[in-house]
Amino acid sequence: MRCRKCDQKASINMRHHKLALCRDHFLEWVLAQVERSIKKYHMFTHQQRILVAISGGKDSLSLWDILLRLGYSADGIYINLGIDAGVDYSAKSLDFARSFADSNQARLHVIDVKAVYGETIPELAMRTNRGHYKPCSVCGLAKRHIMNQFTSLHHYDVLLTGHNLDDEAAILFGNVLHWMGSYLVRQGPVLEADRPGLARKAKPLCRMYEREMAAYAFLRGIPYIQDECPFAEGSTSIYHKQLLDKLEADRPGAKLDFYLSFLQARKDGLFSPAIDHQSDIVHPCPECGQPTSAPGLCTFCRMLAKSGNLPSINEMDLT
Amino acid sequence: MRCRKCDQKASINMRHHKLALCRDHFLEWVLAQVERSIKKYHMFTHQQRILVAISGGKDSLSLWDILLRLGYSADGIYINLGIDAGVDYSAKSLDFARSFADSNQARLHVIDVKAVYGETIPELAMRTNRGHYKPCSVCGLAKRHIMNQFTSLHHYDVLLTGHNLDDEAAILFGNVLHWMGSYLVRQGPVLEADRPGLARKAKPLCRMYEREMAAYAFLRGIPYIQDECPFAEGSTSIYHKQLLDKLEADRPGAKLDFYLSFLQARKDGLFSPAIDHQSDIVHPCPECGQPTSAPGLCTFCRMLAKSGNLPSINEMDLT
Repeated sequence: MRCRKCDQKASINMRHHKLALCRDHFLEWVLAQVERSIKKYHMFTHQQRILVAISGGKDSLSLWDILLRLGYSADGIYINLGIDAGVDYSAKSLDFARSFADSNQARLHVIDVKAVYGETIPELAMRTNRGHYKPCSVCGLAKRHIMNQFTSLHHYDVLLTGHNLDDEAAILFGNVLHWMGSYLVRQGPVLEADRPGLARKAKPLCRMYEREMAAYAFLRGIPYIQDECPFAEGSTSIYHKQLLDKLEADRPGAKLDFYLSFLQARKDGLFSPAIDHQSDIVHPCPECGQPTSAPGLCTFCRMLAKSGNLPSINEMDLT
Repeated sequence: MRCRKCDQKASINMRHHKLALCRDHFLEWVLAQVERSIKKYHMFTHQQRILVAISGGKDSLSLWDILLRLGYSADGIYINLGIDAGVDYSAKSLDFARSFADSNQARLHVIDVKAVYGETIPELAMRTNRGHYKPCSVCGLAKRHIMNQFTSLHHYDVLLTGHNLDDEAAILFGNVLHWMGSYLVRQGPVLEADRPGLARKAKPLCRMYEREMAAYAFLRGIPYIQDECPFAEGSTSIYHKQLLDKLEADRPGAKLDFYLSFLQARKDGLFSPAIDHQSDIVHPCPECGQPTSAPGLCTFCRMLAKSGNLPSINEMDLT
């Protein structure tokens, strides 16, 4: 297999794009693709302050790398969830995040959940027991809350996450299997800050296959944590990914078509605007000030109240 | 495993309903379920004239059987497509349809495509060559056309098809993979006769799993053609069914939830009414008089014109 551009030996063959490229042309192609998404979906500009949610995995570190190479002003934020699970997961992830920041002279904010809230995510989950033996729902809630609060308080224009096409297709598939109307109308490359206190969010890798991002990290020599979160095993989203992987293997390009035709259909007015119930009036949480749908504490502060731990944002340790 | 109702040995265990039943209670349950769908979706009444599209397979013959047992006035229509494919497919299917009609003293209309249009479906497809080596698109077009025309001309109130839940979930899945907006807004248990010349259509088995219908036909002792159409092999709809079968095996009830949550979301106003472009003005085809979206011949008559064969409906052989 030869590179389409220079006829050198190809490093990657992308069947869904009918495109084989050598290392250098692939890395160049990834940059161009991501830049194209940033512009197409009006995600942000070179003048804006960008915050990237860093997990220490291939997607978020590759995204940060791409943004820096494209000349964007992008800081990182790492939330230390305190997940050990016998494999020292959070500590190792943090090492990869720090190491990337150091070698790129980039700024990484680190929020330590235990230091700020007195307990790690597994401890919080164990205590508040949100009806599931796994801490995933508590973890998702905490991450969304902390990221949103940090982005707003530190006046970043946009918060970026490393969700790739495989992630987005799996989320869409899950939303479609149960026809979650209010999620369907909001899922997309950009979540606008359409309510007071809500940070603007974007996903510049939404059109990049997971395999492409793994190849990018590998070919760029970016060290990253290769393990999945130990709690992710057996999750519904991984199960949906496996079904879509089968579809993609049999019909190359199916995931991309699924996601892009969804965006197009929504743009063409498939969904009734009235369905976006979330855009109704929001209330500031009396504890943290973040927007919440009903008067009173937000879901995150309610959870903390259960565990008897309500620190203010000023206690957040930044390193 | 014991029958939930009478504690006899169960004949079927339906994991998705967490329900095991003996032969008699299962057959009673199927009747009640179908009657429930007929009423819930306002499909038809005991006073109306009903036409059932009969293929000779388990679903259409079981549907006919159920309707007769529920006391509905239901005739059948069989379209002889002239598919041989080395297995005498159409002739055998017709035998099963005739045999059911005879043993139930029911009326079966038979339309012979070759007698009316001069060519079998495979011959028509071969000649008009609609860009595919398989006759499936020509066959679907011809069946829709003939059924619709026959239903209207003979003043039936509604045309029923034997689509079961597995069929409906697979169609929905296909529509969702490519986000076919105009199909999504119209797919459902009932297709209203909302344009002049369009027959009302309904699918009373839309909530019944394929496996349930196979069990019904078996336990009722209904002989039916067990082969799939020889041209169906490798079709996209069968492929989608296999993916959904995997999902159902891992998550019992997933197909039903997928389909019912779709209907609920649509009822709740998820889709914008403006998307149903098909409800725009229609024109009567100058040849057959059936509704078509653009002035001039309808798609079916255009296809026939290509093959130089344009019989009028009065030539239709009825037996």
